[in-house]
Parts: sequence; C-alpha cells; structure tokens
Amino acid sequence: MPPSHPTLPLAPCGSPALQQRLQALLDNKTKPLGALGRLEALALRLGLALNSESPCLAEPQLVVFAADHGIAAQGVSAYPAEVTRQMVLNFLAGGAAVSVLSRQHGLQLTVADCGVAAEFEPHPMLARLKVAGAEHGSVDSTRAPAMTRAQCEAAIANGRRLVAGLPGNVLLLGEMGIANTSAAALLMARLTGAALAACVGRGTGLDDSGLAHKRAVLQRALALHADAHEPLAALAHLGGLEIATMVGAVQQAAAGGRVIVVDGFITTAAVAVAAALQPELLARCVFAHCSQESGHARWLQHLGVQPLLDLDLRLGEGSGAALAWPLLDSACRILAEMASFASAGVSQRQPRP
Amino acid sequence: MPPSHPTLPLAPCGSPALQQRLQALLDNKTKPLGALGRLEALALRLGLALNSESPCLAEPQLVVFAADHGIAAQGVSAYPAEVTRQMVLNFLAGGAAVSVLSRQHGLQLTVADCGVAAEFEPHPMLARLKVAGAEHGSVDSTRAPAMTRAQCEAAIANGRRLVAGLPGNVLLLGEMGIANTSAAALLMARLTGAALAACVGRGTGLDDSGLAHKRAVLQRALALHADAHEPLAALAHLGGLEIATMVGAVQQAAAGGRVIVVDGFITTAAVAVAAALQPELLARCVFAHCSQESGHARWLQHLGVQPLLDLDLRLGEGSGAALAWPLLDSACRILAEMASFASAGVSQRQPRP
Repeated sequence: MPPSHPTLPLAPCGSPALQQRLQALLDNKTKPLGALGRLEALALRLGLALNSESPCLAEPQLVVFAADHGIAAQGVSAYPAEVTRQMVLNFLAGGAAVSVLSRQHGLQLTVADCGVAAEFEPHPMLARLKVAGAEHGSVDSTRAPAMTRAQCEAAIANGRRLVAGLPGNVLLLGEMGIANTSAAALLMARLTGAALAACVGRGTGLDDSGLAHKRAVLQRALALHADAHEPLAALAHLGGLEIATMVGAVQQAAAGGRVIVVDGFITTAAVAVAAALQPELLARCVFAHCSQESGHARWLQHLGVQPLLDLDLRLGEGSGAALAWPLLDSACRILAEMASFASAGVSQRQPRP
Repeated sequence: MPPSHPTLPLAPCGSPALQQRLQALLDNKTKPLGALGRLEALALRLGLALNSESPCLAEPQLVVFAADHGIAAQGVSAYPAEVTRQMVLNFLAGGAAVSVLSRQHGLQLTVADCGVAAEFEPHPMLARLKVAGAEHGSVDSTRAPAMTRAQCEAAIANGRRLVAGLPGNVLLLGEMGIANTSAAALLMARLTGAALAACVGRGTGLDDSGLAHKRAVLQRALALHADAHEPLAALAHLGGLEIATMVGAVQQAAAGGRVIVVDGFITTAAVAVAAALQPELLARCVFAHCSQESGHARWLQHLGVQPLLDLDLRLGEGSGAALAWPLLDSACRILAEMASFASAGVSQRQPRP
C-alpha cells in the first residue's frame, strides 16, 4: 500500500462458526449461563479478533502518541503548552501514571513524538515520528488547516510503520498533547454531527469561563473548515498530528489482526476517523473506559460500543486502557482455564417442575 | 472477646491529618487535579484503611464461604442443591472462575466449609468450619429459623477465628451456596425495609415463573419471622451459615485493620449485617462491583457506597472481587510510584488571563 492510500485491507475477524464454538465453550463453563456478564462478551470478542478458541494476548504494546497543537495558543487548555514536552520526559523517566500502570501489567511502553514542540535526546522508548514542516506541532485551526493533506498522510504512514515494527498482537492506545481535547471535540462535532456544545468538555480542568472561551474558539475553527467533511479532510483540517498518527496505527493494527484497546476521548477520535473509513475495524476494538470528559459517553454511544470501566478518569496517556488490561487477560484465562460442567462433574440446571 | 459478643473493637481507620497528607500527595502527582477519578478516591481509602501514606497490600486472602440452605428444598434456585458440594470440589481442583482469577492475580484462595451437605477429604485449601447441629446446612426458613442463635454465634466465631489465622492485610469475600440469594434477599428486605419484590432476583437464572415462585416462598419466610428485627436475630432466622461465618470474618478483618473487598449480593448481605452493628467498618470496605442480581444496586445505594465495576456479573464466588483486585493494586502504586510536579519538573496549571 502506498502511504497515500486511505485504508489498508483488514485482517478477517473470526467467522460465524468460530463464534458458535466460542459461545458453546463459554456456555459449558462451570457457571450459570451468562453469569460472567460482560467478561463473556469480551472473551467472545477477543476469540474472534485473534481467530482462536483459546485466544492468547501476546506482548501487549502501549503507545503514547504525543504532539503539540497550534490551537493551544488560543488559551483552550488549563495547562501551558510546554507540558506536552515535560510529560514526554516524565513518560521516559517512568514517573507518569501510564508508566506506573504499564510496569504493573507488563505492558511495553513506547512514546511516539508525532510533533512535540521540542527535540528530545534519543531514548530506547522514544520513536521519532515527526512530519516534515510540522516538526513542532500542528497549525492553529482557527486560522488555517491544522495540517496539510500531505502532512496528515505522512503522519498516518508513520503510525502504520510504527505498529508494523512492534511485536505482539495487542495495541493499547495512549496520547499526550496540550489542547488535544479541542482537536478531538472538533472531530466529534464534524464526524457525528452533534452540536459543538455537546462535544466540548473541560479537558484538563477548565473552569466555567474557560469552558465558555474554549467553546467560542472551537466554534470559529469549525466554521472556518465548514467544507472539510470527508473523514481524512476533517482529520487534516481539525485534528492533530498525534491523532493522525494514531489513525495509521489503528489501521495497521487492524490489518495485522491485532486487538486494539481504546483509552479515552482523544484515542476515540482516532478510532472514529479510522472507523468512518472502515466500520468493520470496530470489531477488534475494546473500549477500555468512559471518560469524565463530557462528550465521550455520547461518542461511544454514537459508535455503538460499550466501555468496560467507568471510573471518572480524564487523564489520557492510555491510563484507562492500562487499567482495563487485566480484564482482557481474565477473559482469555476464563476461556482457557475454567472447567466445563462435564470435566468438573457439576450438575446442570434443573428443569422447573 | 467471648464468641457470643456481638462485635469486636474496630482498628482505627486513618486520621484527618493522614487524610490531608494523602490528598496533598495525590494532588501533587503529575496529572490534572482529580484526573484519575475514582482511582484517587480508592487510593485515599486504602491509605486510611492501612494507616499509611504509601499503603501496601500484602498477601491478599480470598475466602469462599460455602454452605447449603434448607430453603433450597422449596425450589427457589435454578440449580440442584448438590451443586454446592460439586462447586467446592471445583474450587479445590482449580477449575472455577474464582480459581482462575485468583491464580491470575496471586490471591491466596481458601474454601471454608461452613455447612455444606457433604463431608470432604482434607485438603490444604479447605477449612472445615461446620457448626454443631448444622453440619449439613441451615434449616428451611419457611418452616423455622435457619439457625438457632447459638449456631449463628458459633458460625460468627468460626469466621473470626479463620481470619485471625490468615496472613496479610486484605480479605476478599467470596461465597457459594445454592439458594443463598434467597437468604440474602430476605436479609435485605429485613435490614433495609425495602419491599421484598425489590430484593428478590433471578439468582443463577430463574425464569419468570421461577422468580414469581421464589418471591412467594420468601414472602412466607419473611412473615414467619416477622419479629426477627435486630441484625443478629435477622441473620439467625433468615440468613445462612456462610453468611453468618462471613459476618465474623468481616468483624475480625475490621478489628485487625485489614482492607475488606466485597463481591456481590451475598457478600453484601454479610457486610450489611456487620455494618448494622458497627457502621464505621464500612470505611475499610471496597465494593468491587454492582451485580446484575436485581436488588444489589439498591442495596449498595442504601449503604451509601459506590462499586468499582459494573460488568453485569452474577456469579458470586468472589469472582467480582478478584476482577477488581488490580484496581486496588494500581491505586497503591499511583501513590507510591508516580512523580510529583516538582520531582518531574512539570509545570502546574496556568492562571486564566
């Protein structure tokens, strides 16, 4: 596939026959029918995604896609833009929430510099994925497109290449970028058609006046790019470099038959763009949690998906994906290790008299 | 304390000064204020319960309290009563859901025979906690009290003794007993004053007519024991041996300064009885999940607590407690390992212009 091709051919996701076999396996485990609730649905999804009656999650990769955003200059975030760079250093030093959670669960952590307004020393965990002409971030979308179409395509190609080079069969999505809830809210408004007000939240913690200001700024950006409707046009005009890179990462993960674990509001933006081009890839996505960022619940509903956790998280970084990770592991172990009624000699339910 | 004493002195649970220090620690971690949502509240609770700014969960013990119930003879369960015995063997053989999840998370699993209608071969994971005169289960509470007061007190004493002999500082509650959602529903109705219909659910999977039958049976039991209002009287008349043993276990855990992880509907019944005697012990309980068993959500609300997970589980065994376990571990690691703004050199939020 040339980098400019908008999609990649998807790996097949299970078959009706496999689905039946997985369901029969689950139904014969020593528990009342369906008693493990959504863990059973998760086991089914993982079995289909990995095309196995005994799916095994191997070498999970958590990638934090980081970039800066020109729109930060409009004062749409509670934190200064230099925090993007500082947090990248914090990820590399192992002190961020996602660092702690990745260590806990044995997730391999990679930080992708998709356009942070800084140059970093080489580091074994850091992938330099800067895009020519946008090395230090995207353009303020209240003034011009955030990226040129060529830059957007280059970022997508970067994401594809990064994931193609990572081992394992699971990709957990994380992100960092001051003002990236603004880019994600703009994409939500454009892709779902929801009113902008329903898409804009407090991000890292805006107060009421900050939120009102953010809404007004984003309204201008949305109006300026009123013609950018096609998914990749919307991404280039309204999105950000880490989101575009993530779109490519999601496409490559889906093409390679991986499971994709989606974190919060911003990673949902990337998956939504990819799904607008190829809705079938949602079948291999696991939505880790519903963020406290207003708009996320509605976006998940719009995508027709149900997240695993609802813990009022609004940190990003992939922290929610990492927190949900043990549930994926549990779902696979239930399939692989639980006894059946027959193997354990446990009686089935009795007919009602 | 003589076994007949209804309560044990509680270990102190943190202090206002510790609470302030924990909150300051959390607020200075490299994340927007409160961005880890309910994980931060959990970290605070664990710090207070273990009286430490850097709480450490040690040697977690998951105990499955098992017993049979005389009321099963009334046809209130979708499964035959012999499943209690069969599932105990399944726990010991390592094939049950809670066995799989305990292995995954390094939880030490103990099965307590509080009155299963069988005699088991000795096994290193099995504790024989049968009560004289009720070795094979409780009495059908539609005909007489489920236990005598002396049997109920003996079960409580058993639970206290078991936990006193276990290492570690965390107790995860699990249970097994065909018909024990009936005992728990009766206790809910009596302790909360809610209408019985709001307390009775489908248990292991009753159909509509089975549910109607269960309601009618439980209505008779509730009427027969209309005078059993005091918590321990309600427990003896309407409860079950595994629930009474669990009440003692919860009391001992609270007296010994442990964290208590509550699973679903039946373990909530035990905690509710203990909390009716000593409401303060709720401060060291973590409610793992909201069960799909109708009544559980309302009972949690009545207790004023919020569960961590909501995955439509209705299996019991401690499976929900085990699934929530990694979140407790994460909360402690966030406190211990995350960098502060100062240590990582990350900028704080900016004042609004």
